[in-house]
Amino acid sequence: MSHFVCTWICFAFFTAGPAFAEQPDPLPTWNDGPVKRAVVDFVANSTDPAHPHFVPEPERIAVFDNDGTLWPENPVPFQLAFVIDELKRRLPEHPEWNDNEIVKAAVEGRLETVVAGGTKALIELLNLTHAEVSTEVFADRVRQWLRQARHPRFDRPYDELAYAPMLEVLNFLRSRGFRTYIVSGGGLDFMRVWAEDVYGIPPEWVIGSYARAEYVLENDRPTLMKRPGVEFIDDKAGKPVAIERFIGRRPIACFGNSDGDKAMLEWTTIGRPNTLGVIVHHTDADREYAYDAAPKSTGKLVEALADAPKRGWHMIDMKTDWKRVFTFDP
Amino acid sequence: MSHFVCTWICFAFFTAGPAFAEQPDPLPTWNDGPVKRAVVDFVANSTDPAHPHFVPEPERIAVFDNDGTLWPENPVPFQLAFVIDELKRRLPEHPEWNDNEIVKAAVEGRLETVVAGGTKALIELLNLTHAEVSTEVFADRVRQWLRQARHPRFDRPYDELAYAPMLEVLNFLRSRGFRTYIVSGGGLDFMRVWAEDVYGIPPEWVIGSYARAEYVLENDRPTLMKRPGVEFIDDKAGKPVAIERFIGRRPIACFGNSDGDKAMLEWTTIGRPNTLGVIVHHTDADREYAYDAAPKSTGKLVEALADAPKRGWHMIDMKTDWKRVFTFDP
Repeated sequence: MSHFVCTWICFAFFTAGPAFAEQPDPLPTWNDGPVKRAVVDFVANSTDPAHPHFVPEPERIAVFDNDGTLWPENPVPFQLAFVIDELKRRLPEHPEWNDNEIVKAAVEGRLETVVAGGTKALIELLNLTHAEVSTEVFADRVRQWLRQARHPRFDRPYDELAYAPMLEVLNFLRSRGFRTYIVSGGGLDFMRVWAEDVYGIPPEWVIGSYARAEYVLENDRPTLMKRPGVEFIDDKAGKPVAIERFIGRRPIACFGNSDGDKAMLEWTTIGRPNTLGVIVHHTDADREYAYDAAPKSTGKLVEALADAPKRGWHMIDMKTDWKRVFTFDP
Repeated sequence: MSHFVCTWICFAFFTAGPAFAEQPDPLPTWNDGPVKRAVVDFVANSTDPAHPHFVPEPERIAVFDNDGTLWPENPVPFQLAFVIDELKRRLPEHPEWNDNEIVKAAVEGRLETVVAGGTKALIELLNLTHAEVSTEVFADRVRQWLRQARHPRFDRPYDELAYAPMLEVLNFLRSRGFRTYIVSGGGLDFMRVWAEDVYGIPPEWVIGSYARAEYVLENDRPTLMKRPGVEFIDDKAGKPVAIERFIGRRPIACFGNSDGDKAMLEWTTIGRPNTLGVIVHHTDADREYAYDAAPKSTGKLVEALADAPKRGWHMIDMKTDWKRVFTFDP
């Protein structure tokens, strides 16, 4: 090895980390403003051994809601779009579904009927599309769907719709020794299929709702079968429970966008000065959507919005804080 | 920096890994034999980019049962010893427990009565000692117990009873980029208190049984309360389910000791040539315990023992394979 290469490696080795002053902007898609400053300062302090808010690497846990925080949740959460497309695709093999009012409403696009049926109706549709299938076959179905489906407004595959500024936050945190977990109401098995490609988040950092599963050994072949029946809903007060169950550590950073994320924002930040709570406020109907108190489907943001000032949670104003929303934006 | 230091760092950097021939024995507490060779060869092959069985680092997942695999499970699993000690300690505050036959049997050491009560009796005792308490207070109780309790035979704190040869396996695997998960029938919240100190296994790599929990915000203070009611039993066919739920990847190495580990041994190894399945066979009544078909309490090993040859699972003969069982052995 030449002396030059050796010197270069040593240089890279010793100048990595927070001591390196001449760093490029880690969040170039963000306009300068209080939220960007809060994120950059939080990372600088928590990774600086000399700072009173320094946090050792194993405890650098950041949790992110998914729908509405890392990608859109309109006109419907993307997993519901998958459910509807799956019902349509498989309807020919299941003539009995034609007698099911909820299925008919879903495939005919009468979502108000599905919504009126509440959790019971949703779970019925999930049982039809997410159960009595092996984990392997289910993952293949999600992959196949992602290749074909297009978002109705943006006319792109759903997995191209991650928010560009949030991808920067994920990468920035990971580059500083954070582990970036998804903590979403969406299904574990659904999200793990694409979370690594879309966000760089590996399967073991994806936490979500889950249904019953069963281990089956048949003809000397082991299989995990997804069964009907939701076992855990990872939303609202369920999110801190899931964080404790899956990680066993309290996060120091939390990003959400709706009242479903209020409990995990509280669990992350209350009484803990060296933490960061951030809420994505959907204020941009031109580039994405504008909603909070009265969303069309999910993502209601009322209580967490009211609590933000007293909790010190930072509000992302999508319209002014983000130079671009999607990577394909000009 | 001097050229000498620079050269030394580059040397260390480029010679680390499987190419470095002059390595010390990674398993010095193991006698040479087929199991030691199987473990060493498996690690060499799965970490050698030139080998057909090479496995990229993110997929190097190894799972370990705990009771009977990483530390003893006799005369009773250590968590049951904790339950009994907790019942005794708190009995004065709970005079109503004196009317409970199962509690009385437990505190009076009549374990055959507890065992005769089956899962129902055990869950009753778990609800009394593991519920209606915050996760923080519960962890403190476990810590306090570990400081005071002594194993009846070895007269040591329970957390000094890890098997020395298995600690070497854990360290060896982690030094080669493996993540070493516990997948145990024991309680998540119980194990996470000491797993990092005892095994070097951080909370997020500890998978176990768990009960219901509830997030409570009271007087602006968020708490997670453990509630009565087992939600998931991480044993037998539950183990592959838990592995999929918590990790989302199929392990490539699995260590167990009883029929409770058979399903996860199958899930790890069947039809996957680049994997490792190992069973700790308790053959050493002098230094530890000898049991398989008829254990005194838990740890029955019959079906997995019968299947081992056809599955290619390696049997650790504790008596001949291990030079020492505990770190304090001569």
